[in-house]
Amino acid sequence: MREPTTRQLSELASSFGAAIVGPDATIRGVAALRSAQPGEITYLSNLKLQGALRTTAATAAVVRDASGLPPLMSYLVCADPALTFARIAQAFHPRPASRASIHPSAVIHESARLGADVEIGPHVVIEAGVVIGAGAQLKAGAFVGENSSIGAGTVLMPRVVVCADCVVGARCRIDVGAVIGADGFGNAWSGDHWERVPQIGRVIIEDDVEIGANTTVDRGALEDTYLESGVRLDNLIQIAHGVRVGRNTAIAACTGVAGSAVIGANCLIGGGVLIAGHTRLADKVSLLAGSGVPSDIDEGGVYASGTPVVPHQTWLRNMVQFKKLNELARRLRAVEKLVAPAAPASGACNDDAS
Amino acid sequence: MREPTTRQLSELASSFGAAIVGPDATIRGVAALRSAQPGEITYLSNLKLQGALRTTAATAAVVRDASGLPPLMSYLVCADPALTFARIAQAFHPRPASRASIHPSAVIHESARLGADVEIGPHVVIEAGVVIGAGAQLKAGAFVGENSSIGAGTVLMPRVVVCADCVVGARCRIDVGAVIGADGFGNAWSGDHWERVPQIGRVIIEDDVEIGANTTVDRGALEDTYLESGVRLDNLIQIAHGVRVGRNTAIAACTGVAGSAVIGANCLIGGGVLIAGHTRLADKVSLLAGSGVPSDIDEGGVYASGTPVVPHQTWLRNMVQFKKLNELARRLRAVEKLVAPAAPASGACNDDAS
Amino acid sequence: MREPTTRQLSELASSFGAAIVGPDATIRGVAALRSAQPGEITYLSNLKLQGALRTTAATAAVVRDASGLPPLMSYLVCADPALTFARIAQAFHPRPASRASIHPSAVIHESARLGADVEIGPHVVIEAGVVIGAGAQLKAGAFVGENSSIGAGTVLMPRVVVCADCVVGARCRIDVGAVIGADGFGNAWSGDHWERVPQIGRVIIEDDVEIGANTTVDRGALEDTYLESGVRLDNLIQIAHGVRVGRNTAIAACTGVAGSAVIGANCLIGGGVLIAGHTRLADKVSLLAGSGVPSDIDEGGVYASGTPVVPHQTWLRNMVQFKKLNELARRLRAVEKLVAPAAPASGACNDDAS
Repeated sequence: MREPTTRQLSELASSFGAAIVGPDATIRGVAALRSAQPGEITYLSNLKLQGALRTTAATAAVVRDASGLPPLMSYLVCADPALTFARIAQAFHPRPASRASIHPSAVIHESARLGADVEIGPHVVIEAGVVIGAGAQLKAGAFVGENSSIGAGTVLMPRVVVCADCVVGARCRIDVGAVIGADGFGNAWSGDHWERVPQIGRVIIEDDVEIGANTTVDRGALEDTYLESGVRLDNLIQIAHGVRVGRNTAIAACTGVAGSAVIGANCLIGGGVLIAGHTRLADKVSLLAGSGVPSDIDEGGVYASGTPVVPHQTWLRNMVQFKKLNELARRLRAVEKLVAPAAPASGACNDDAS
Repeated sequence: MREPTTRQLSELASSFGAAIVGPDATIRGVAALRSAQPGEITYLSNLKLQGALRTTAATAAVVRDASGLPPLMSYLVCADPALTFARIAQAFHPRPASRASIHPSAVIHESARLGADVEIGPHVVIEAGVVIGAGAQLKAGAFVGENSSIGAGTVLMPRVVVCADCVVGARCRIDVGAVIGADGFGNAWSGDHWERVPQIGRVIIEDDVEIGANTTVDRGALEDTYLESGVRLDNLIQIAHGVRVGRNTAIAACTGVAGSAVIGANCLIGGGVLIAGHTRLADKVSLLAGSGVPSDIDEGGVYASGTPVVPHQTWLRNMVQFKKLNELARRLRAVEKLVAPAAPASGACNDDAS
Repeated sequence: MREPTTRQLSELASSFGAAIVGPDATIRGVAALRSAQPGEITYLSNLKLQGALRTTAATAAVVRDASGLPPLMSYLVCADPALTFARIAQAFHPRPASRASIHPSAVIHESARLGADVEIGPHVVIEAGVVIGAGAQLKAGAFVGENSSIGAGTVLMPRVVVCADCVVGARCRIDVGAVIGADGFGNAWSGDHWERVPQIGRVIIEDDVEIGANTTVDRGALEDTYLESGVRLDNLIQIAHGVRVGRNTAIAACTGVAGSAVIGANCLIGGGVLIAGHTRLADKVSLLAGSGVPSDIDEGGVYASGTPVVPHQTWLRNMVQFKKLNELARRLRAVEKLVAPAAPASGACNDDAS
């Protein structure tokens, strides 16, 4: 982290549309509530943490409402403290611009076209026919395969691999070790062995997409895998062949999306979610961590599955019943018939789940 | 993708044992049903999609039965359209052969033996005692550790790492970033700290195995980790030390197989499955996505676990009951005794899950 | 594996505090019970495997109690055979020391400071301001970003990436492809698009920590991500921004720990566990594979969740009931009221889970 320059609190307030309560001050950086030092600005995301404002050494805090808060520091008052704080943090910590240099150890095919001011790090490999947009940064060991293109201002962190024939938009950021365009899992059974289903689709990534470390986005089998603009993928996510992820959808770590699933826009997914192949999810679907999605979700809303931890002995006893849950329901139905034979059942018991 | 050469439909029919219905035609490539263009061949995997045959621009389609299909195009009729289509796609998109060249930036130990026509890409590292078979391709940044061997015709995609003393068979394909032969998770508790359990087994991979991007296959602790011929592993899979995976078993992404598990042949697993250590799975076991396998499965068949998503409020209410499922069963048993004390219970309620 | 030198059984016994039963012998290596050859020592972890002692070709075995065992070989008797065997294996297979050499293809910034006897492999990149401790080993393609430090004796296996401003302690081992210090998943919603929350915390890793292949440990948003000494992480684990993992906690593969979770010391976790953000886990918590932890665990002990596999048809029928579990409980409550209206309910049925 380079030493950030300082800014006046009043300047931050006017830049980001907040009101000041308390004296102006010189701010040299951002920090968490409990570890902030004098000269730093912090924020209050949760009123339950309000007590910590009495003990923090911060010079200022971004809050939703300063009334009732201790007059020990200055406040920036705004509608969305987390967002405003993020923007202040961006001001102190802008993403580094391209160094506009090409390391001599990089291996760049003569037919590749590099835009102005690109940064090509050590041991980068750029194959034939590749196009790199202006100001893009390819960090150490990044690899771009034949005929792929990387948009202007996009950053490939160390060891990122973009395989052949893929398209990455502008202002994207792909974090360390992510793999874009590896072969999808396409196998046809011959009766005796697996045969390869050629994966001839591409990966298309629109602008302003961010992808986490060691995540994999497979190329399509016949049609392209597609990430719309503004998508956010965390680390260690699997996006299989032919998946489409809608605009601004954010997916947390350890999630797996199987082939040809189509996920709507503005969804919030995971982590640790599994989404079955060929399913369709509506816009604005939220899936809690650990959810399993075997079939379509046609309406936005919050969904969950999975079972939270309990002490092991409790779990063992519950599992005995869980394994015969349908039988339990059948026994209940039998008792209901004996006790109140005329009453309409409030819920049927299926002997078959067809 | 290089521009594929064209082929006659009649030639494809005779090569792959299909019958033609309709006129012969020149085919220049394969495509999906809904995006195919004139000159392309597609296939109908599912009769429900039959309607799309009326609107596709494809020149031909591979189908199981052409009777009743619109006479707008030619058909290749065969018993397994998906397999035949895969083979036609292979014909148009053969895997690229070795470039038979060694990049000057590769670091190759003088004691390594390279077969004829190998392709060694930029920044590849080959350590002492390594043997690389004829026609093998090691793409940019691949690493092969001391005394390992890579079989003839095998492809290591960019950044693949094969650690020391491992054996990879012929005609394998290991996709970007996969790690073969890292240390297993072997720790012995000393009463005060963890001590290392040396991982001195190898990874042995037979012929015709394919492994997905960023998947990890650990070396054995004492005995080797072993992938039999024809195994298919998808992306982001963990295969722990000493696991054995049987011939032609296919495992989908995000699955974890714990130490010393033995998985039979021709299994279909995952994705997102967890298989406990030291378990044994029979041949032809199918595990649905998200399954957890705590103990042996002695017979082939389809198995499942996990719970599909429901709306969040429903889930919260269900979880209250789930956490006391055994109590629910006990209450039902009590009611049954009151209502029909003489009737034999259709199922016992265990107060203890021993 | 280099050919190990031989040792006398009596020497091993005195080095590791075991008693010999049977004749002294020359030992040339360690092996598993069923594959051991003459001259090798094995161990008996489980009395159920005792029968295998009759057929093994091993010259000696480490056991807890030799009474009743067949006098076909020599025994080393000790309180913890697995630990003693691990120490014997370490003696035969010490970790390789640094080669104390710097490969000419490495790219090392002039401001980096390298300790004595470091090993820097091919295509390593060391950026400005980095400090590498004495005897550290950076294997092929490892990357250390600006101002990070790597402790004495620590090993970074091939392709490991340590991003800028991170601290890795002494005697750590980070396995192939692991990523330390990539950006956390920090996004603030603007009402229209995601904005970046700068990730300005570091990753701090204390001494004697081991991290598995392709695991990712993100840098903190504002405060550091922290792994205490002796932590063990397996492969393909996600540790999110601001997480703290306590001393000697071991986490198995495919586990995801969300942001700002605080995990105590001496926990045993996973694999395939999901731990929610901002949760706190006490010391000595054990979580079985596949557990989901949505909230704090305040006491040590063994916990579990998830549901084990059953045949698919059984699962389908159970799922029908599982989705209406609360309704099942309500129906049971209704029956109870009819049958024994005066009896106190042994458990309440919640119509609302609030």
